[in-house]
Amino acid sequence: MLKSDFNAVLLQHRIDIESFLENYILTYTEISGNSAAIASRYSLLGGGKRIRPILLIEAAKLYGVKKSDYLSFAAAIEMIHTYSLIHDDLPAMDDDDLRRGQPSCHKKYGEATAVLAGDLLLTAAFEIMLRNISNSSALAREKIQAALLIAEAAGGRGMIAGQCLDLQLEQVKATEIILTDLQHKKTGALLSASLLAGAVLGKATEFETGLWKQLGLIWGLIFQMMDDVLDFTADAAVLGKSTGKDERDRKSTFVTVYGLSKTKELIRSEQGKALELLEILAKEQDIGFFIAFNDYLSERGN
Amino acid sequence: MLKSDFNAVLLQHRIDIESFLENYILTYTEISGNSAAIASRYSLLGGGKRIRPILLIEAAKLYGVKKSDYLSFAAAIEMIHTYSLIHDDLPAMDDDDLRRGQPSCHKKYGEATAVLAGDLLLTAAFEIMLRNISNSSALAREKIQAALLIAEAAGGRGMIAGQCLDLQLEQVKATEIILTDLQHKKTGALLSASLLAGAVLGKATEFETGLWKQLGLIWGLIFQMMDDVLDFTADAAVLGKSTGKDERDRKSTFVTVYGLSKTKELIRSEQGKALELLEILAKEQDIGFFIAFNDYLSERGN
Repeated sequence: MLKSDFNAVLLQHRIDIESFLENYILTYTEISGNSAAIASRYSLLGGGKRIRPILLIEAAKLYGVKKSDYLSFAAAIEMIHTYSLIHDDLPAMDDDDLRRGQPSCHKKYGEATAVLAGDLLLTAAFEIMLRNISNSSALAREKIQAALLIAEAAGGRGMIAGQCLDLQLEQVKATEIILTDLQHKKTGALLSASLLAGAVLGKATEFETGLWKQLGLIWGLIFQMMDDVLDFTADAAVLGKSTGKDERDRKSTFVTVYGLSKTKELIRSEQGKALELLEILAKEQDIGFFIAFNDYLSERGN
Repeated sequence: MLKSDFNAVLLQHRIDIESFLENYILTYTEISGNSAAIASRYSLLGGGKRIRPILLIEAAKLYGVKKSDYLSFAAAIEMIHTYSLIHDDLPAMDDDDLRRGQPSCHKKYGEATAVLAGDLLLTAAFEIMLRNISNSSALAREKIQAALLIAEAAGGRGMIAGQCLDLQLEQVKATEIILTDLQHKKTGALLSASLLAGAVLGKATEFETGLWKQLGLIWGLIFQMMDDVLDFTADAAVLGKSTGKDERDRKSTFVTVYGLSKTKELIRSEQGKALELLEILAKEQDIGFFIAFNDYLSERGN
């Protein structure tokens, strides 16, 4: 896929996702005094690469799933991602003042409202999936499975377990194994679930869903490695969030554990593994988008 | 129903719910380093009246629903209630050090872990319902409907909207109407959803679910009025949480708006309304438990 075509696809999906999210969150903000809804809207619509919903959509489209059957799930996964950022940025957690180039949710609306805004988005994510399942009988079993996969990935054996390990990292120096396990849970689980949910909605075979799951974990690692590289090298203005934070917090990252050049080498090697998985999937499907996405992961500047 | 029989029913349900919750949370705490799971367990199993799951179970039983079909939903609603208490107790929110006679979650495990413990329980609630739906084909449509009702009640148009209004109460003096709307959302929505979910699982008619919904809102009001009375009159040791807090926070409550004796009168009048609804339901069902529950609400000492 040409880079210009790839970028056009990303843009089109972003427009779809954001307009869906904007309409949905309206049903909350119209309640008077609903400060959590207003704060949710701020964080949900304040930019973002929309990587997780885009992966879900592209995986679903590959298997011929209709927009009305996948869009609620894509929106839900972005809501879960946004809630996790709002809670992660809280003073008691990562204490981040800046997110996507703007004040983080609690800096803008206060801590109590930010806690509730996160809670609102997490609950809304399940509401939106359940409403989609309830409103139509299409793919009911597949949709329940997809929602369950997303819950597992976001929950106490997935993303939240990763966040717990991450909090502990501020006290202990991580090894390679610890850091990989942490990132599989913290970032990989939800990325994997995005691909998996799309594939499951499309009734992919068990063999295929296994490959998508693997791919998501690898991409989660690459994503986190790039984050660590960017935290070390990039400008806060470009990145849209605080930089040098890991160093300030004396936090173990791929860069502090492996060094910068070894981390970049690891990114290339993980991209190679991803490509091998994609080549197996390519026997059945046209995976041009995903090959372009694999390159994009190491090219992003924020 | 005799008071001794009623108490025996409460006890039996509590045992069922707690043993189910204990087993379920084990699947999280067994992950090494999962501090959020340990903190969740602490709050989830640290006592509590288990009112919401008990109402769900009794409503479901009335319509002949099997234990394997309702217990996951009862557990889910208790997890949601517990998450809301953990987040409400946070320093940025109600700042409560004591809950059920023990240090609140963040006092025991720190603020970051308490935020994550709440997030874990909220996510686990949906996971547990979705897993039950996924594992069996019984009552699939009804279960999706019940899970959706619970999501709506817990979310940004229900409990979270109520919590937002509650935060604002610390700045403004509430009127009767504001306070009732607030409590319908903050407490009534989830109580109503407990009854509604049970009735929906049992394929109750639309007329009946309408009555259960009304009843839940009334009981939510009574419950909150009693809380306000107890905050004003009871001993912290008996209540198991801080007392006199509302006064300290200059917070509008039913007692500060109506006075103590008028609030007690209102409780009796709301109980009368509840009884009228129950009498309509009694034409179809044996509602002895619910009549005893209506009395119990104004008799509780904590």
